[in-house]
Amino acid sequence: MTYQAPLRDMQFVLYEVLHGDQVLPALPGFEDATREIMDAMLTEGAKLAENVIAPLNTSGDREGCLYDPETKSVTTPSGFKEAYKQFAENGWTALASPVEYGGQGLPHTLNTLAEEMVCSANLSLGMYPGLTHGAINALTSYGSDELKNRFLPKLISGEWTGTMCLTEPHCGTDLGLIRTKAEPQADGSYAISGTKIWITGGEHDLADNIVHLVLAKLPDAPGGSKGISLFLVPKFLEDGSRNPAFCGGLEHKMGIKGSATCVMNFEDAKGWLIGEPHKGLQAMFVMMNSARLMVGLQGLGIAEAAYQTSLGFAKERRQSRSLAGPQEPDQAADCIIVHPDVRRMLLRQKATIEGGRALAYFTSMQLDIAHNAESAEQREHADDMVQLLTPVVKAFLTDEGFFCANDGLQLMGGNGFTQDWPVEQFVRDARITRIYEGTNGIQALDLVGRKLGMAGGRPLKRFFAMLEEHCKDENAPHVGELKAAMAKLQKATLWLMQNGMTDREQAGSAATPYLRLMALTALAYFWSRMARVAREQLDNGSSETDFYQAKLHSAAFFMAKILPQTSSLLTEIEAGKDSLMAMTLEQF
Amino acid sequence: MTYQAPLRDMQFVLYEVLHGDQVLPALPGFEDATREIMDAMLTEGAKLAENVIAPLNTSGDREGCLYDPETKSVTTPSGFKEAYKQFAENGWTALASPVEYGGQGLPHTLNTLAEEMVCSANLSLGMYPGLTHGAINALTSYGSDELKNRFLPKLISGEWTGTMCLTEPHCGTDLGLIRTKAEPQADGSYAISGTKIWITGGEHDLADNIVHLVLAKLPDAPGGSKGISLFLVPKFLEDGSRNPAFCGGLEHKMGIKGSATCVMNFEDAKGWLIGEPHKGLQAMFVMMNSARLMVGLQGLGIAEAAYQTSLGFAKERRQSRSLAGPQEPDQAADCIIVHPDVRRMLLRQKATIEGGRALAYFTSMQLDIAHNAESAEQREHADDMVQLLTPVVKAFLTDEGFFCANDGLQLMGGNGFTQDWPVEQFVRDARITRIYEGTNGIQALDLVGRKLGMAGGRPLKRFFAMLEEHCKDENAPHVGELKAAMAKLQKATLWLMQNGMTDREQAGSAATPYLRLMALTALAYFWSRMARVAREQLDNGSSETDFYQAKLHSAAFFMAKILPQTSSLLTEIEAGKDSLMAMTLEQF
Repeated sequence: MTYQAPLRDMQFVLYEVLHGDQVLPALPGFEDATREIMDAMLTEGAKLAENVIAPLNTSGDREGCLYDPETKSVTTPSGFKEAYKQFAENGWTALASPVEYGGQGLPHTLNTLAEEMVCSANLSLGMYPGLTHGAINALTSYGSDELKNRFLPKLISGEWTGTMCLTEPHCGTDLGLIRTKAEPQADGSYAISGTKIWITGGEHDLADNIVHLVLAKLPDAPGGSKGISLFLVPKFLEDGSRNPAFCGGLEHKMGIKGSATCVMNFEDAKGWLIGEPHKGLQAMFVMMNSARLMVGLQGLGIAEAAYQTSLGFAKERRQSRSLAGPQEPDQAADCIIVHPDVRRMLLRQKATIEGGRALAYFTSMQLDIAHNAESAEQREHADDMVQLLTPVVKAFLTDEGFFCANDGLQLMGGNGFTQDWPVEQFVRDARITRIYEGTNGIQALDLVGRKLGMAGGRPLKRFFAMLEEHCKDENAPHVGELKAAMAKLQKATLWLMQNGMTDREQAGSAATPYLRLMALTALAYFWSRMARVAREQLDNGSSETDFYQAKLHSAAFFMAKILPQTSSLLTEIEAGKDSLMAMTLEQF
Repeated sequence: MTYQAPLRDMQFVLYEVLHGDQVLPALPGFEDATREIMDAMLTEGAKLAENVIAPLNTSGDREGCLYDPETKSVTTPSGFKEAYKQFAENGWTALASPVEYGGQGLPHTLNTLAEEMVCSANLSLGMYPGLTHGAINALTSYGSDELKNRFLPKLISGEWTGTMCLTEPHCGTDLGLIRTKAEPQADGSYAISGTKIWITGGEHDLADNIVHLVLAKLPDAPGGSKGISLFLVPKFLEDGSRNPAFCGGLEHKMGIKGSATCVMNFEDAKGWLIGEPHKGLQAMFVMMNSARLMVGLQGLGIAEAAYQTSLGFAKERRQSRSLAGPQEPDQAADCIIVHPDVRRMLLRQKATIEGGRALAYFTSMQLDIAHNAESAEQREHADDMVQLLTPVVKAFLTDEGFFCANDGLQLMGGNGFTQDWPVEQFVRDARITRIYEGTNGIQALDLVGRKLGMAGGRPLKRFFAMLEEHCKDENAPHVGELKAAMAKLQKATLWLMQNGMTDREQAGSAATPYLRLMALTALAYFWSRMARVAREQLDNGSSETDFYQAKLHSAAFFMAKILPQTSSLLTEIEAGKDSLMAMTLEQF
């Protein structure tokens, strides 16, 4: 497959829309994140993604990972090891990690941009360092200084990788049910025993060591999710001996075949407690929250790759004539991009990707502000946005990553269904992003069940205030459409307050359409902002007329053809739970 | 995988809703199609699908088809040959074929029910006889008596299979571009040369001979689609010699891996003209139209299989507690079917499948009426319905087959993504049904570009009249919702008449949402009819209370949670083409 990082679009969002070149370097600790540094990083990242990582995407899918039951080892597809080494050596694992442990201490936002490019190029390969990043975050936030000193430097350098070991055969969503045990040992360590499944990068040949972060229960643990502790369990101990944390096999999956998804057996493996006893879920959520944002970026990345492939096809493939009469009479047929229905599929991808990119980068920048801003007020405000929008970014962008990949496949006809083109793999790979790190249904429940009510509804109030502020801008296009969408979201929120607080099943019945309604409203906001910038540039005589005109056209398409879904979503929400709950078990 | 044919649901639609046990045997030629015969057939078909065909679905996917370049032969997955033999010997290939050539002469509707069961059980295997059926239809309608005598009996007995050879590397949708040539020979035959791709069952080991129906151009052919003729080209000639129609390789596809999708090279292969010179497209459309209906049934079949699998999972998998408090306090967690969001995904499948089944069976019965009814008026009326609804059945049911399979996968979480469960295969297999036999975009163009305007709009007027007639029934539930949907469809039709007739790009921009709007309106009509029957049965004290109550609940769910999409679709249609066509090629 070929991939070209959409640098101009990325820069447009980061600098022209979100002013990242002013906001980020103004944050204490991020003084180095100048536009020059960020541009250099983007250019380097693009090269790596385009020339090293993307060429391994198809072959990685065909080869898959190999498990050897004799040695309990896993071989990743050809070229992955070398590409990962280059990724680490070029500093990508260290990018946003703490300087005191060898990191570069750059903003998280830059990781986000890198994640998009890497996941466009090769989702399976991108997952290995992606999980390490989560482990670094949890360890940084909750680990003792001793553990940090022992493990962070090599995780940050990329010499070692990390995992998150949560799921067990009988429990995924409901972690209160886990059975893995941790027995305290005389030396202060713990003996961990149990079986974990769905462990990304649980075993592989990319790095010298693997650091597992494992949820387990202490002997005196209270029942349910309040009795879970987090442990660090390395594959190799510091004396070089092999810790009995073995891969028991690989999952056979629909996609992400280059990513080793392992069954892990901990057989009295030596581990150390991270954070306080029984408070592992809290630490795990630090990993989860940044991981959820990143999974949203995976959806965006795949959508972009599918868009590029299908756009190229639509501009080359000749079939039938334009409905308005031959466009290229000297050719046997016109290119299929002349057809309104093909354009519908292309523009759905384009408008969703570019709007979704603004939403995702915005949320990432809020994360940086939440961590590094000087004033507590600023930090709180930004954290409110992160809390509210993280489930939206995760669920909406992964749903749309899958839908966009499918639009790409569809417009390519039979070609899209064959393995001669990369799009069928994008569809298969994208499918899991709607499930892992909390299914999109769980994201929606997180939004309506936790985030809306947080701090008396403050995050949502601030979200609305931000949109209302923008609506005052007389030069902003599409404010009418945005206001109409906001009114529907407000109406849905009111419905939730009146019905969902006394009856949690009402909230549960509204969750998925509510999340989508919020996402579409957020995208309407960002499209209005982007159109505002584009309009201004054109008025000021920018030479990039095609680029800015395209933004205006995409904004208009979004408002005309995608945003109307908000009507049906509101109706669906207000219809409530009755038609969902009436059917008895026997009647199904 | 396990599959249980939904006989009770099928009978409900066929007998109680559509009165097939009265309508079909009343048609001249179908006197034998009594309820007793139909029930016996359904029971036998269910056994074959459940016990013989379904067990080969997973293994067929894993094994795939094998091509041997030495012998240019194709080996199908283990067990396919034996299962196909049983299918043919039990009379399934002969079911709806003409009696004079050894067929059973039963209604097409019964083929439809069989197709649903076979495609639930194993789409790949079902495709081999499915294509034969199309070849039988074209030959019956357009072949000379001599050709019919030579080829029909063994196609109908299933000893031989058929193909449709349309697509070439540079043309799929636009058949006017084909390059395959037919040179007249002294003996009245033709020498066919050219390359065809995407030929389902082009080569395989299931049958003794393969009869290719090939589109090609005669030397004096006019340009474009008016210069295409149809030829019959057997793999083996009657003297036993091998005709040079060779498989050049297999496509590597995302799904339907047990179906041999072949590149076919015709190297001066001997063939015979079917029908008149240059009028091949007409004959091909006879195949295409019945094939399109059948592809809709494939979508329905896969959706049913996905629903059964995911329903079973939702009733077994325990995870978290009901939002209304523990339902089974003595268990560690409740079954996930207690959650509104899981029910949303189950009911979306259930309501779409059962509504879609009514639409598909209705259209099939109209096909039988169109062919066999005594009066020309009845035949015309029925044919109008078939013409109008065929693209709707094809596009809507295959879109929904894919969406339902995805809902099934989603509610199963990580399990659904693994090959331990059959759902990921359903998703991959279903994907192609939205593309072949005319992409769903082409179906939509067929609907708005040809079918709406046919005979001065008569088919659509008759469709509306049928719905209006039903709305007069005071005992029919959900008439209000149905009327609202009809009003939107009428509004959209008016918009099309005002805008699409003078500007074909306007019609093209509205096509896909218009088709979906019509499909949802049709489903609202059938759900109202089904609810009407269920209500009456309950009022009359039927002992099947759960069965009929479920119909009422599903109808209510459809109206509350799916039908509201009609609002957004109308808005999308009325937004017109501007936002689709404004972007220039350079701006994409």
